[in-house]
Amino acid sequence: MITENQYFDGNVKSLGYTTAEGKSTVGIINPGEYEFGTADKEIMYIVEGELSALLPEQTDWKIFKAGSQFEVPANASFKVKTDVQTAYLCQYR
Amino acid sequence: MITENQYFDGNVKSLGYTTAEGKSTVGIINPGEYEFGTADKEIMYIVEGELSALLPEQTDWKIFKAGSQFEVPANASFKVKTDVQTAYLCQYR
Repeated sequence: MITENQYFDGNVKSLGYTTAEGKSTVGIINPGEYEFGTADKEIMYIVEGELSALLPEQTDWKIFKAGSQFEVPANASFKVKTDVQTAYLCQYR
Repeated sequence: MITENQYFDGNVKSLGYTTAEGKSTVGIINPGEYEFGTADKEIMYIVEGELSALLPEQTDWKIFKAGSQFEVPANASFKVKTDVQTAYLCQYR
């Protein structure tokens, strides 16, 4: 099954699927700033585009370009902001 | 705008967006075999999972794993088949 998800009035949309290693989503983030909460550990890969992330326990925003990745622990919140539509892969592991 | 597309009775779903270089989609392909037609040149990147592709003018299926890519010219058709849910990025350039 391919699940369809949307958040923030449709400014973030994703498609969910399952791999042998766990659940994943691919999605698109529209320009803007958003705060996400995690239930499980998330590994985020930037597929196309670019975003800045303010990760848990950090005070500085970091830029992540296509091909780069970051991790967020379970039960945490983080912010992302972007000026361009950005595609990502999120692995819940 | 993030467009939502589905094909083959929902066995292929994608999300469309626009970059400075042209349109792109990220999507998921369920296990199965599918034939696609191109209107524009497409560059396909395997984001997660694995699939086999029978590209135009070819007689042999080739395996593409996560991180690999292939191109399909405009106005052509190609087949893909996969045993696992596979995530892709498609750039129309």
